[in-house]
Amino acid sequence: MAVYTDVAADDLTTFLAGYELGELLSYKGIAEGVENSNFLVHTRKGHFILTLYEKRVVAGDVPFFLALMEHLAARGINCPQPVKTRGGEALGHLCGRPAAIVTFLDGMWIRRPDPRHCYAVGVALAKLHLAGLDFPQQRRNALSVDSWRALYDHSAARADSVQPGIASTVESELTHLEQRWPQDLPKGVIHADMFPDNVFFLDNTLSGLIDFYFACTDTLAYDVAICLNAWCFEPDHSYNVTKGRELLQGYMRTRALSPAELDALPLLARGAALRFLLTRLTDWLNVPEGALVRPKNPIEYLRKLRFHQTIASVRDYGVLPERAGA
Amino acid sequence: MAVYTDVAADDLTTFLAGYELGELLSYKGIAEGVENSNFLVHTRKGHFILTLYEKRVVAGDVPFFLALMEHLAARGINCPQPVKTRGGEALGHLCGRPAAIVTFLDGMWIRRPDPRHCYAVGVALAKLHLAGLDFPQQRRNALSVDSWRALYDHSAARADSVQPGIASTVESELTHLEQRWPQDLPKGVIHADMFPDNVFFLDNTLSGLIDFYFACTDTLAYDVAICLNAWCFEPDHSYNVTKGRELLQGYMRTRALSPAELDALPLLARGAALRFLLTRLTDWLNVPEGALVRPKNPIEYLRKLRFHQTIASVRDYGVLPERAGA
Repeated sequence: MAVYTDVAADDLTTFLAGYELGELLSYKGIAEGVENSNFLVHTRKGHFILTLYEKRVVAGDVPFFLALMEHLAARGINCPQPVKTRGGEALGHLCGRPAAIVTFLDGMWIRRPDPRHCYAVGVALAKLHLAGLDFPQQRRNALSVDSWRALYDHSAARADSVQPGIASTVESELTHLEQRWPQDLPKGVIHADMFPDNVFFLDNTLSGLIDFYFACTDTLAYDVAICLNAWCFEPDHSYNVTKGRELLQGYMRTRALSPAELDALPLLARGAALRFLLTRLTDWLNVPEGALVRPKNPIEYLRKLRFHQTIASVRDYGVLPERAGA
Repeated sequence: MAVYTDVAADDLTTFLAGYELGELLSYKGIAEGVENSNFLVHTRKGHFILTLYEKRVVAGDVPFFLALMEHLAARGINCPQPVKTRGGEALGHLCGRPAAIVTFLDGMWIRRPDPRHCYAVGVALAKLHLAGLDFPQQRRNALSVDSWRALYDHSAARADSVQPGIASTVESELTHLEQRWPQDLPKGVIHADMFPDNVFFLDNTLSGLIDFYFACTDTLAYDVAICLNAWCFEPDHSYNVTKGRELLQGYMRTRALSPAELDALPLLARGAALRFLLTRLTDWLNVPEGALVRPKNPIEYLRKLRFHQTIASVRDYGVLPERAGA
């Protein structure tokens, strides 16, 4: 949850004067998103989300995110759409930060996903991958295998203070993944952060996707691996193979996974677990002064990583035999 | 800012089934209010605020607050109105906490109030006092002079760790106020927390009052003293006599202050400053683990208290001579 930057009504009124949104009626900081400051804004024209991009989002990347949302929405993906200024700009500045207004999406995120939700997420992820195939822009994944070691360097000295043994696990895992990370699998636009709080449902039907601020050009199957981590573990960190099967079936019925993609899935899942372990470790050890964010415990992803290390074949994730590259 | 309790969509759906509000379409935790968890809820019937009353609000007091809002709204005060269940109940339970739904109020709170805003606040406070005169319920002010010493006891040993000298200032002030606190001034319903973030404006016109969760039966002029503290100091802690005059004039044109009330104002203002100093000191020294609230610095109110200690007469607050009990 986060509102890092408070916005004064006068400043917001001035900002909104550049849009065709009518009089500002109310705005409230919302306790969602950990990277940016988000406000629910009510104007004469309706409800909108105002996002102020905080320092962890590179300002130069914001046009990519906004163009991507527009591209995906035009292809039937229900996601927030940037609202443009009278001058046709999607990106502005407010309180010294890049800022944008997007449409408000109804729907709730599911705190306790069940297998049906996982199936729906698989379908939605595959549709997103297909809809992104002709997106012309590229953005490097700043949080993939070639960045992990540098990211870990910030935490290495103190990693074992969180739990003894993290350092050696991470160091050997880094080496393992760097040597084996697949380079030739199908690439495209990935969401890269499709956690339950970024997927909206209405009456158990998936109604929309939000938060494209980690989206980038990367291996599509890696996005599937992120979702396995994000959706298919129970609160006690055990892997739920039914959820995994549903997620993978939903995905594969919409976009086939090649034998090479399926074979790589355990390794990609280890990478995804390590990626979230590393960012959470960084956040855990470096809570900025005055932060209004409770860092997420990195141990959850240490346990997921150790689970993936035991996986012998993609079948262990719930892929049915006839699908598992047989 | 605060969302202390996360609410799952399923639980909220079940809760809302008791109301005539139609299908739940979305809800978001909002970063406002430091005592309770607040959610902006969108249903087929519109937008509402859901409040979960956290432990600092005594469950037994909630019916008072809800009945008061209903009473005031019926008398023309624009404040949130409780939405009742099909069974006519304003108060329910959700996630193990007392919970209520109130109507959503448009309007923005003013980060940088100017004298016009202070005038409007004075008028609104007086109207609230008048509208509350025939409210039949009573609630003792749990944060008035007879509670301050016990409140301070929690912080006394560590008070000087915040700033050397706080302890001696507080101790002598407690004695001073306990001996002189006025008992016979007009009493009634007071808001008791009418800070800028609880007063909404639309286009510089005061449009509504929110957050009645400190409201109680107490000395009306004490509420004025709270507002002097909350509205009439600059960010550098200097007192702005123009703002003070406007606030007092707005109030007095709506409800006259008797000579006895005016004479008591400097003492009441010291008390109000001490009350917020003490609660902030408590919060500052006792941040609960996992808190998502940044405690407010108590020093602001130490400085305000020391200012009020120098006040010789109510004229120093900006009351014009002809009004100042002359």
